[in-house]
Amino acid sequence: MTPHTDRMRSHPPDGRFGGLWADLAGIGRDALRGGYARHGFDDADLQLREWFVEQARRRGLDTETDRNGNLWAWWGSPGPNAVVTGSHLDSVPGGGAFDGPLGVVSALLAVDELRLRGVRPAVPLALVCFAEEEGGRFGLPCLGSRLLVGAIDPDAARRLRDGDGISVADAMQRAGVDPAGAGPDPQRLAGIGAFVELHIEQGRLLRAADPTAAIGVGSSIVAHGRWRITVSGQGNHAGTTAPRDRHDPMIPAAGAVLAARRVIQAHPGAVATVGRLQPIPGGTNVIASSVDVWLDVRHGAAADTSALVDEILHEARAEAELEGCDLRVHRESMTDQVTFDPALTMDLSARLGAPAVPTGAGHDAGLLAPHVPTAMLFVRNPSGVSHAPDEYAETQDCLTGVRALADTLEGLLAPEAVPR
Amino acid sequence: MTPHTDRMRSHPPDGRFGGLWADLAGIGRDALRGGYARHGFDDADLQLREWFVEQARRRGLDTETDRNGNLWAWWGSPGPNAVVTGSHLDSVPGGGAFDGPLGVVSALLAVDELRLRGVRPAVPLALVCFAEEEGGRFGLPCLGSRLLVGAIDPDAARRLRDGDGISVADAMQRAGVDPAGAGPDPQRLAGIGAFVELHIEQGRLLRAADPTAAIGVGSSIVAHGRWRITVSGQGNHAGTTAPRDRHDPMIPAAGAVLAARRVIQAHPGAVATVGRLQPIPGGTNVIASSVDVWLDVRHGAAADTSALVDEILHEARAEAELEGCDLRVHRESMTDQVTFDPALTMDLSARLGAPAVPTGAGHDAGLLAPHVPTAMLFVRNPSGVSHAPDEYAETQDCLTGVRALADTLEGLLAPEAVPR
Repeated sequence: MTPHTDRMRSHPPDGRFGGLWADLAGIGRDALRGGYARHGFDDADLQLREWFVEQARRRGLDTETDRNGNLWAWWGSPGPNAVVTGSHLDSVPGGGAFDGPLGVVSALLAVDELRLRGVRPAVPLALVCFAEEEGGRFGLPCLGSRLLVGAIDPDAARRLRDGDGISVADAMQRAGVDPAGAGPDPQRLAGIGAFVELHIEQGRLLRAADPTAAIGVGSSIVAHGRWRITVSGQGNHAGTTAPRDRHDPMIPAAGAVLAARRVIQAHPGAVATVGRLQPIPGGTNVIASSVDVWLDVRHGAAADTSALVDEILHEARAEAELEGCDLRVHRESMTDQVTFDPALTMDLSARLGAPAVPTGAGHDAGLLAPHVPTAMLFVRNPSGVSHAPDEYAETQDCLTGVRALADTLEGLLAPEAVPR
Repeated sequence: MTPHTDRMRSHPPDGRFGGLWADLAGIGRDALRGGYARHGFDDADLQLREWFVEQARRRGLDTETDRNGNLWAWWGSPGPNAVVTGSHLDSVPGGGAFDGPLGVVSALLAVDELRLRGVRPAVPLALVCFAEEEGGRFGLPCLGSRLLVGAIDPDAARRLRDGDGISVADAMQRAGVDPAGAGPDPQRLAGIGAFVELHIEQGRLLRAADPTAAIGVGSSIVAHGRWRITVSGQGNHAGTTAPRDRHDPMIPAAGAVLAARRVIQAHPGAVATVGRLQPIPGGTNVIASSVDVWLDVRHGAAADTSALVDEILHEARAEAELEGCDLRVHRESMTDQVTFDPALTMDLSARLGAPAVPTGAGHDAGLLAPHVPTAMLFVRNPSGVSHAPDEYAETQDCLTGVRALADTLEGLLAPEAVPR
């Protein structure tokens, strides 16, 4: 036990929560869009990583960055049957404060809580910050965990580029991670005995399940994917080109936006969104030569999601043809439906008195779930708003989350929980 | 007569055209979108201005920058009844090579041609490069000529900002132009006896009027304006927000794009375009919190254009209300219909054997026309494509344009043309 840890113990958890939260408040503010712009390996991300390393140091935890740029802090020596908790530090562009960082802050505070309780782990405990979970910079969500579990070809991942043309390889290099090493990490994966991710709830399913519950347990994640639709037409002058001479890709692009809405209205439970759309060149007095439309679709299992996408693209292609435009589609990502470990989920739900609820949001936990026993804890979100500056959870609910996470970890770290 | 001018004379005009054209070819390439990105007071623009000053110097012409950042070169001392020709050096984002620079290059070559003919101007001749004609940087087209003629409040102009938040005032300062001096320049305007702008044709009206004509004469410019429509909704998570809980501004934004197309199809001769559209924050897995849609509308006189805009906005507002979104509209510019000097236009058309055709494109000539006798020459554009990298004119047609411009200027510079 280090003096630092003693100092931690002398503060009540709510004070410590406020302190950690205040540390993060100023990092990576998005002046243009409000909220935060924290993206994989950018300046804000590197600053957050430094903060995490310092917090781990104060708790006497050794830190390391894995071959995929994920950041780990260890209580006890790395070894088999490790219990792992954590989340991510990056945000969507203009995102809220809680999505990601709440799971990291809670992991640090859960360590304090376990030490306060005098828990002596029978297996190592690791805290993890996964890299570029939102895909806000390189387009592919859960980049770090996806590489770790081998769900993406490392060459394809290294070649992904951000809006400024910087590749994942270059960004990793700059962050001091050798991109040549990126890829599946089976040894690390095999050492994980269980993974628990605490996260702010996104949406309104927890409230629907139990309006009084401050926390919930995640049961499953719907299948979800991203498609980039490129509509190409003929760039031209906005003032001198008669309607009959136009091949304006903005027309089928707008058609695709509305087709997505029409199609999901016919499929209860499905969602489809165009939140990003970019006309090229993007001049007011210029008919665009092409428009990129990013389509996010989530529904049931992978086959259900794909069927919806086909329906939307069928309509979009018809509109492109009418306008004399070309339409190409690139699937940026596809993550199948995931069910979290049923025994662990049921046990946690019963022990914590927290309803089990599914989610439409992707998480690093979803990438790990097919490989290791995985569970998620959700902290109540009064408005259901997420991926926006208004995203919010009450501090009391966050502290309930910390205690629930500590309870969960205490159970998993007990000698009787360790498989022989 | 300077030695430089002698050297100019020793080269045939087509060779000189190729040389000047080659000077410009490498400046301000748009690597992202193809074509050129040359915007008011940016690095490319400053480089083009240096090139123009050097070309003027080689011809023994004195240059000056006026209080609004427009660049002038004088054959003879500045004085009353000046004949002025020129155009602009800036482009739309990803624009073609000809829109603007062709008028400047032709003005320089017309000076050479007049000297070759031994013309001795009875009044001063000025070449002008107007600043930020396209409004590609600060949103307002014809910024330099608009300020000169007093068609915009100088304070409002100084406050305009580009995409990086840099104001017109800051950009002018950086370019060495005191922004405090920006505004109406009645003395300069009163000194202009006639203005002639040569420009590549945009669209297909010249070909429709006479398929064999290499040049045309501009008769009028349709009314045109720009409106920024801001649709505000509720930013949220793309995966967890049920369709019934969404206030997605992208839906009415797409509706506005399609409404613009529907409305102009009911009004022959009208055009309306959305070439620029920006969702905020613009994340793939994020329902946008707001979307900016720029609408360019052109039809008949100002009242006709405004009526069309009202019709489009009526439909867009209805769609915003359906989605529970707010819609606000900001008129960025409005330029009324302009008819070029009828006597000058008819005379040129007859003298040059060039059909008189209207245009849907805005020009600095349109801003000057209400104040001074103004004419336009159009050079044939085989495909009609403009504001795009494919924009093109044959060199032979450009040289025909230079000769026609020289003929026009020679007539205007003759002692009998000068009003007493």
